[in-house]
Amino acid sequence: MDRELDELKAQVEPALRRRDLPTLAGLLYGTSAAIVSRLLEREDAADRAVLYRLLPREQALEVFELLDSAMRAELFVGLRHEDVARVFEELDPDDRAQLVDELPAGVARRLMSGLSAGERELTAPMLGYARGTIGRHMSTEYVRLQPQLTVGDALSHVRHRGHSAETIYTLPVTDSARRMLGVVGLRELVMGDAHVLVGDVMVDAHQVHATDDAEVAARSLVDAQLLAAPVVDGEDRLLGILTVDDASRILDDAEAEDAARQGASEPLRRPYLTTPVLGIVRARVTWLLVLAVSALLTVQVLDVFEATLEQVVTLALFIPLLTGTAGNTGAQAATTVTRALAVGDVRPRDSLLVAWREVRVGLLLGGLLGILGLVLGSIAFDFGLGAVIGLTLLAVCTLAATVGGVMPMLARAVGADPAVFSTPFISTFCDATSLIIYFGMATWILQL
Amino acid sequence: MDRELDELKAQVEPALRRRDLPTLAGLLYGTSAAIVSRLLEREDAADRAVLYRLLPREQALEVFELLDSAMRAELFVGLRHEDVARVFEELDPDDRAQLVDELPAGVARRLMSGLSAGERELTAPMLGYARGTIGRHMSTEYVRLQPQLTVGDALSHVRHRGHSAETIYTLPVTDSARRMLGVVGLRELVMGDAHVLVGDVMVDAHQVHATDDAEVAARSLVDAQLLAAPVVDGEDRLLGILTVDDASRILDDAEAEDAARQGASEPLRRPYLTTPVLGIVRARVTWLLVLAVSALLTVQVLDVFEATLEQVVTLALFIPLLTGTAGNTGAQAATTVTRALAVGDVRPRDSLLVAWREVRVGLLLGGLLGILGLVLGSIAFDFGLGAVIGLTLLAVCTLAATVGGVMPMLARAVGADPAVFSTPFISTFCDATSLIIYFGMATWILQL
Repeated sequence: MDRELDELKAQVEPALRRRDLPTLAGLLYGTSAAIVSRLLEREDAADRAVLYRLLPREQALEVFELLDSAMRAELFVGLRHEDVARVFEELDPDDRAQLVDELPAGVARRLMSGLSAGERELTAPMLGYARGTIGRHMSTEYVRLQPQLTVGDALSHVRHRGHSAETIYTLPVTDSARRMLGVVGLRELVMGDAHVLVGDVMVDAHQVHATDDAEVAARSLVDAQLLAAPVVDGEDRLLGILTVDDASRILDDAEAEDAARQGASEPLRRPYLTTPVLGIVRARVTWLLVLAVSALLTVQVLDVFEATLEQVVTLALFIPLLTGTAGNTGAQAATTVTRALAVGDVRPRDSLLVAWREVRVGLLLGGLLGILGLVLGSIAFDFGLGAVIGLTLLAVCTLAATVGGVMPMLARAVGADPAVFSTPFISTFCDATSLIIYFGMATWILQL
Repeated sequence: MDRELDELKAQVEPALRRRDLPTLAGLLYGTSAAIVSRLLEREDAADRAVLYRLLPREQALEVFELLDSAMRAELFVGLRHEDVARVFEELDPDDRAQLVDELPAGVARRLMSGLSAGERELTAPMLGYARGTIGRHMSTEYVRLQPQLTVGDALSHVRHRGHSAETIYTLPVTDSARRMLGVVGLRELVMGDAHVLVGDVMVDAHQVHATDDAEVAARSLVDAQLLAAPVVDGEDRLLGILTVDDASRILDDAEAEDAARQGASEPLRRPYLTTPVLGIVRARVTWLLVLAVSALLTVQVLDVFEATLEQVVTLALFIPLLTGTAGNTGAQAATTVTRALAVGDVRPRDSLLVAWREVRVGLLLGGLLGILGLVLGSIAFDFGLGAVIGLTLLAVCTLAATVGGVMPMLARAVGADPAVFSTPFISTFCDATSLIIYFGMATWILQL
């Protein structure tokens, strides 16, 4: 796939420079949507709009559905008004709802009001749910069965109604009031006896509530290895369907966000190489400033101990080693627990369990490093300094592991993103506390 | 789902303590496999084996398929020999191949030789591919069509052959020598005219090579929003099929690994709360030691500058601030680029492009922080120290962003895991270099 993309790119770029539209159209024609979408993501906004307008109607829609959401909005704004209205009308309702989130409010309102009544009706339910809920991501185009149908009749119902459905592989079964009874897979209908009733072959549905957190709902679908799950309201009535490809996209975005925040920046939400340099700076600058300002704390801590430092300048040599080790230990715990929260392995109520595990892990790690620090410090300098370094390592590792483990739990408990309040803040916190512990130990042991 | 799990757990645990097997069996009976698998992942090894043996045959298999791979192997080793042989025989061949990787070699060999001939034949092809390739994860149970069949005949072929297939939703179309011609979805067969030829409704396959890297192949499937992709050999002959649930599992494992390594530890490969404390220590200790030993570099750098420090002890106050900011800037760049590599947005050949972007990002971030440092430092101390801090921030941010961006690219180019050689090492590297730059600036500007 990479090779195909490279070959296409090598042929497209000279033609783009010559603005040779017929050649470009020929190159794109019949190329798979996956390749074309990746090509578009690698071009700048102007070239992207040129290439996109050359795609045949059907292929254009397929490509559009594969683009990142930020990229879709950008492309949309760059297209001519009539193209925009057409693409918007032809999008799947769930993709349309996603796009509305990304577009400038005025553009979104104008486009929504330009929709045909039928399409507007299909899109409206999603927009009724808050951002970040799974209701916003569901599709309202599904085929619903009733339990008293035979498998044979159900199959012909699917044939009649399935054309515009998001999926026909998972079919919700409801009573006449749309209340969920179960699901049946197309596989069961195709492989089954035509005379059996749908009610007898359906199984319990793995269903999600429209108001559920999108990430949690998406992960439950993927973890259960299903292709789709019905989305229901508070009374168990069918509202829509969530498909595995939409779930994967939600998880992908969530993971990009976690990974970025763990590294103290905001996710770019578009391919790295096509993000303007200023966009990258914007994603990082706030974090960097906040962390630098928090780090002023370390300056103040050291300021307090300046007299001690003047007495034994050698103490300064170990500052980066100790703060670094504390930061690493804290980051290890925070990363592990943030991940465990994301995949549902721990929940906020497990905070005490997590704290107790991390205390023990921290003691073991700190004990090991502390002994090393004691021995090496005693050999290279003297026993007093060795003892200060060893005991500091023991204390800071234990504290850092515990705080690193508990912080993400607290963040989740108060509804904040655990990734935000874990790694970057923990390393700053560890820097300051490890300095206090270090100089406290030095004052005590070396009697300064 | 969380509520259901909690309720089940609350009922199961007292019964487990009483070893009340009939009650336990009743509680588990009919509970969805997704819930039971999560319950098992939360119990210790002994209770897990007790619960698992109580599951009815069919449910047991379903639950087994949803467990994490390390958990499967552990469970397997804890079961009675006859249970093991039965479950192993009934597993899907691709799940069986995965399990062989996790089991002790002797156990795996004995189980493989105990398989029925048919099942062994289905499993052998996967085991012929190296770990880490997609061949190891494919399923050999698929339904293959020929292009000259009509849609109606194809459907009845699927009805006859589809029972044990991993999926019937994506059907590879090949010539009589098994060479790939395209794919057709079950949806097209069901919705289509029964008299049309398969060759006329099939589309180009998004296919992967058995020797492709598992993560890259899995991501290409998920990115293209497909349910399955044919796996082929070097001559384009069909070998197996990769389904979206297997692809999601591969990506999940890869992401857990990246997240862990970014936080300087190894992935636990099992739920956090059921990992023994020593297991957590093991996942972290090597990293912590390696990083602490690398941090000895900072002690040496500071040792060189001890005379300078003795002259102006105030310089020591800014050490954690400067090394911390350098580390954060480096981590930001490394995280962004590691993610971009993982999702295929950049490739090693883009190294120069990445470096040039990060130089500019670093200059902008460093310029901003540098001005702040200059102003604040001049106000709080004096202009000389302010200038040292400001210029150091400018230099270290630029260096850290560039190195942070390029390191993951270099790691990938030499075949190492970018996550390993990025964040943790970059912060140690940044600590040492920022100290050198800082004291260099101080010596020069303050004329020490």
